Amino acid sequence: MEHNPILVIGGGPAGLEAARGAAELGQPVLLVEKEPILGGTPILASYAALTPHMEDAETVMKRMVDAILEDPLVDVRPETQVTAAEGDAPEITVTLEGPKGSEQVTVGAVIVCTGFQHFDPGRETQMYGYYEYDDVITLVDAERMFKAGSFVRPSTGEAPKRVCFIQCVGSRDRQVGNCWCSKVCCGVACKEAIEIRDHLPDCQVFVFYIDMRMYGFWEDQLYWKAQEQKKVQFIRGIVTEITRRGDTVVIKGEDTTMGRPVEVPMDVVVLSIGMEPSEGSTKMAEIFQLPLESHRFIETIGAPMNTVSTTREGIYVAGAAAGPADLEDSISMAGAAVMKAAGFLRKQALVAAG
Amino acid sequence: MEHNPILVIGGGPAGLEAARGAAELGQPVLLVEKEPILGGTPILASYAALTPHMEDAETVMKRMVDAILEDPLVDVRPETQVTAAEGDAPEITVTLEGPKGSEQVTVGAVIVCTGFQHFDPGRETQMYGYYEYDDVITLVDAERMFKAGSFVRPSTGEAPKRVCFIQCVGSRDRQVGNCWCSKVCCGVACKEAIEIRDHLPDCQVFVFYIDMRMYGFWEDQLYWKAQEQKKVQFIRGIVTEITRRGDTVVIKGEDTTMGRPVEVPMDVVVLSIGMEPSEGSTKMAEIFQLPLESHRFIETIGAPMNTVSTTREGIYVAGAAAGPADLEDSISMAGAAVMKAAGFLRKQALVAAG
Repeated sequence: MEHNPILVIGGGPAGLEAARGAAELGQPVLLVEKEPILGGTPILASYAALTPHMEDAETVMKRMVDAILEDPLVDVRPETQVTAAEGDAPEITVTLEGPKGSEQVTVGAVIVCTGFQHFDPGRETQMYGYYEYDDVITLVDAERMFKAGSFVRPSTGEAPKRVCFIQCVGSRDRQVGNCWCSKVCCGVACKEAIEIRDHLPDCQVFVFYIDMRMYGFWEDQLYWKAQEQKKVQFIRGIVTEITRRGDTVVIKGEDTTMGRPVEVPMDVVVLSIGMEPSEGSTKMAEIFQLPLESHRFIETIGAPMNTVSTTREGIYVAGAAAGPADLEDSISMAGAAVMKAAGFLRKQALVAAG
Repeated sequence: MEHNPILVIGGGPAGLEAARGAAELGQPVLLVEKEPILGGTPILASYAALTPHMEDAETVMKRMVDAILEDPLVDVRPETQVTAAEGDAPEITVTLEGPKGSEQVTVGAVIVCTGFQHFDPGRETQMYGYYEYDDVITLVDAERMFKAGSFVRPSTGEAPKRVCFIQCVGSRDRQVGNCWCSKVCCGVACKEAIEIRDHLPDCQVFVFYIDMRMYGFWEDQLYWKAQEQKKVQFIRGIVTEITRRGDTVVIKGEDTTMGRPVEVPMDVVVLSIGMEPSEGSTKMAEIFQLPLESHRFIETIGAPMNTVSTTREGIYVAGAAAGPADLEDSISMAGAAVMKAAGFLRKQALVAAG
């Protein structure tokens, strides 16, 4: 049954999996990505090793990209954005703006895989000092250093002796308007803590947290490993202030387990920033008239027994565009969205054929 | 393209979604369920309302069952078990034992959706007193009471004045051999705590926990709601003993936030029991020669970018048979497994057609 292609928007993990899977079902796919390269956040944000298995991010993403580049059913459009959409599935006419100008294409179904953006800790500048102190960095800055091959104090270029992670920066925080848990930051911080201890055996590593959300197998794969094998120190506490004293950054707060104030000098402070709806997700919601749910992500309907359907038939969402998601969530959702999109198009074709 | 059906093993959320989705793609499905009724754990364990949206479990599951019962592509076999398997996909001959005796069927692909079983707190009898004290119950016993319409002290039949939940019973516990977090018990306990406060406004409700793993939107949907609107009291602590005094059950332990011992009488203690591999999952692993991963669930390969493939081509796993999973995980994985199974069969048919 010939029909209009499935439009996959976004070339990150969810989008690449959706494109590959749809092509395996014999569906033509149009994959648009606004950046010049495919791979999404793991590539654009220079992730080093992925959580939890620590496989090299470039290797993993290259494998996913190669799987679709070889496929004649997948039409890949880098540096291209969807700027308008008209009509309903299975006849949605979208306007694409790419390197060669503007073009209109009719697609049969849409899978929105536009992901998330990292919380900008500048919004909490006064508290965390991200833009004031070189040695206050984010999980993403740390990944960039791992990828470059050495984890150092940015202010000196030397190996740090004391590093701490501060969890829930921009998550679980009504004041900044983010009333959700970003789901992956506990796991990512644990992974990075392990990596620092591996690279710098003389460096002490601390994690300040509210709850360590190490669900499923992350519990022993990452959390127990960090504690028992790598001697990472987890401190349940609230950090209320980050200041500078001499050439160190000083964390002030309360160790809520010991019930006492803490004031500890650190060489590097890593802010575990959370997920927010990406600009791309918000734009696609507007263009395709998809309502946002209360946290400003794209709304899905029928939860918990439907994870990818939007309010519009034939339009689906996969990955962090629908809310905080780990890589497994994104990949499973991509599969579910392909199943639904292909099922929808089959039904439409049967109806059209009478 | 005509081919052997997809065998879906298990009629719970993952299995029902897999069967429906595969049929939507035009695939013939053989759905086997060992129990006489479909619906899986939400029905067999008498869940009342599902986490997090609190929709009635029977209504939700009936909708899923109806969606496949109407479908001529889905051959449903209740009271049927797979007892043997021979050959490789897309030609696996399975032996089914059903009400009418034994039968051999050739299937093209397999999706194992055999779920989990609840941890039996009897294994920790000395500590929790589940089999000694009527008023020590589990999350599942509580669901049964909600479904029956009233939450009472089992020993008296009266409304309780003080109820507490104890988290991580049979999870995160090396001593019982369960080195994982069961992922859903924090959410389910929060949901039940809210329900108790709704039904019994005079009843105080406490939750003793190590970390409240309220990832994603559960944070405000359930956790903040329980704290702020329903005044559920969350106490970070370790419970070391449950004993009886007069007609109450006494919890002894330590409030680790306040750093002091607690000894609190309760009318009802709810043990938040975790997930273990089900007997069915273990059996299917044997019959289909699927390796178990280190936690004794069915091993998947290619994580995090593949969530449903087993070591054997054409055989997939969805839901809690592969590890702790919430309903959303199970549903997304079912979709991903269908996509892969249908893609696999399409490739095989193309190869066979030359």
